[in-house]
Amino acid sequence: MTGQDHLPVGVFDSGIGGLTVLRVIHRTLPGESTVYLGDTARVPYGTKSPEVVTRYALNNARFLVKRGIKLLVVACNTASAVALPALEEALDVPVVGVIRPGARKAARTTRSGVVGVIGTEGTIMSGSYERELLKIRPDSTVKKRPCPLFVPLAEEGWEDNPVSRAVALEYLGDFASGGMDTLILGCTHYPVLARPIQEAVGQNVTLVDSATAVAEVVAEELGRLDLSSSNGKAPAHEFFVTDVPQRFQTVGERFLGAPLFGIRQVDIDPH
Amino acid sequence: MTGQDHLPVGVFDSGIGGLTVLRVIHRTLPGESTVYLGDTARVPYGTKSPEVVTRYALNNARFLVKRGIKLLVVACNTASAVALPALEEALDVPVVGVIRPGARKAARTTRSGVVGVIGTEGTIMSGSYERELLKIRPDSTVKKRPCPLFVPLAEEGWEDNPVSRAVALEYLGDFASGGMDTLILGCTHYPVLARPIQEAVGQNVTLVDSATAVAEVVAEELGRLDLSSSNGKAPAHEFFVTDVPQRFQTVGERFLGAPLFGIRQVDIDPH
Repeated sequence: MTGQDHLPVGVFDSGIGGLTVLRVIHRTLPGESTVYLGDTARVPYGTKSPEVVTRYALNNARFLVKRGIKLLVVACNTASAVALPALEEALDVPVVGVIRPGARKAARTTRSGVVGVIGTEGTIMSGSYERELLKIRPDSTVKKRPCPLFVPLAEEGWEDNPVSRAVALEYLGDFASGGMDTLILGCTHYPVLARPIQEAVGQNVTLVDSATAVAEVVAEELGRLDLSSSNGKAPAHEFFVTDVPQRFQTVGERFLGAPLFGIRQVDIDPH
Repeated sequence: MTGQDHLPVGVFDSGIGGLTVLRVIHRTLPGESTVYLGDTARVPYGTKSPEVVTRYALNNARFLVKRGIKLLVVACNTASAVALPALEEALDVPVVGVIRPGARKAARTTRSGVVGVIGTEGTIMSGSYERELLKIRPDSTVKKRPCPLFVPLAEEGWEDNPVSRAVALEYLGDFASGGMDTLILGCTHYPVLARPIQEAVGQNVTLVDSATAVAEVVAEELGRLDLSSSNGKAPAHEFFVTDVPQRFQTVGERFLGAPLFGIRQVDIDPH
C-alpha cells in the first residue's frame, strides 16, 4: 500500500444521510482528503431487498475505487448491514461499515446489557446489529424496531416540531422498557432527530450514534495500514451525486454542518 | 391497430401507489386484462430530477411494450408530470397520464375557480397541473404545495392516527384559504390518506382523485381506437416489480383493495 497515503478516503451512502458520518470524519481526521458519493437517483435503500442494495453498493464502490481511494467507508446502515461481505470480496481497498463500530460502542456503553436498535426495515430485518452485539457481549438482550418515517422527517427538516414528537412517540413510546439503557441510532439520518427520539425513550437511555465510532475505526485502520496522510497539503473534499445536486445541497448542508461546494452529478448505472 | 384488442392495458408506477389507479380501472373496465409494473427498486420518483424520472419511465414503458400492450397508463403523477412527451415520442402505443384527466375533473368540479394541488416535490415543481388547468379554465387560481411525508405515511399504513392528522395539519392547516373549493390529490398515494387530508382542509373542499378520471379516459381511448376487449374471455391481471415482491404484496393489497397473486420480479436496468 506504499504511496497510497495521498489518496482520499472514499465514503458512499444511499443519499444525504452519510453526511452525518462524513462530518465526524472531517472533525476527527482533519488532514485527510475525502470523496463522497450519494446515490440520490436510487435513494432510499432502506425499503429495498438485500439483492438490490448489494448491486447498488457495488456500483457505488466501483465508481469510488476507479477514481482512486485508499479506504472505503460504507456510511449507509442498510448497505453495511447487507452488502459488506460482497464489497470486501470485490474490492482491493479496506472497507469500513457502520454496523460493527456502532455495535462495539453500544457494548461499551450499556450497563444493563439491554440494548435497543432502531433503523430502516432493511437494517432491522438483516439482524446485523444484533449479531455483532452478541459476538462482543453474548449476554446482551437486543430489542429492535424499524422506524421508516424518520428518514423523510429528517430530510423534511422537521427536527423539532409536533409531528416529529408524535412520530417518535408512536414508534418508541413503549420501546425502552425492560431495563434498556442504550439505544443505537442505526441509520445515519437519525442523529438529526436525536431530540424527539431522546424525549420518546426518556433521559435514562443513552443514544449511540455510529458516526464517532466509525471515525475512530477509520483512524485506527489508516494508522495500522500506514495510510495516514503525511504530505502536509491542505485536504480536498469532493462530492458526487447520481441525481441533480440541488436537493442534496439544500438538505445536505444541514446534515454536514458546513457549506457544500462543487457537487457533481455522475451516471453510475451499469450500461 | 386491428387485432390488438386482446392485448392487456399496461400500467406502470414508481411503486405501489399506482395500484389505487389500477383498482378503479379494474372496476370501470372489468373486461380488460392488465399488466402492472411497479419500479420498486428505484422508488420513489417524487424527489428525483426530471432527467432521471424520464430515464426510468422509458425503461418501464419499454418493458411493458415488449411484453405486448394496447395502451399505456402512466399511473405515477411525477412521471406523468415530467416524462409524458418523451414517452409519447418514443412509443407506438397510446399513452394516458394522470395529470390531464385530473385537471379536467378539477376544472369541472370547482365553482370558485380556486383550486389547490398537492403532490410530491417533482410533481409540484413541474407546474404541470397548473398548466393543464389554465388551458381548460384560464380564469382559475391554482395554489400548490408539496407534501413529501404523505407517501411514507400511506405506505406505513397510518391512515387514520394522530400522526397522520398532525402531518396533514402541518402541511394543509392554512392551505384552503382564499375561496379554495377543490383540492387535487396529485399523487396516487394520497387517496389512502383522504380522511386526515379532508379534516385538515375542511369539509367545504372537494377532494379530486385522478383515478376515476383516468379510468374514464382509458375507456374513451379504447373505444375511439376500436381497441376494447371483445373476445369475451375472462381478463387476466399480471404484476411485475423490480425489487423482491414481499413488501409490494403486503402494502399493495391495501392499495388495490384485493388480494395480489403471482407477483414476479424483473430486472429492467439498462445493461
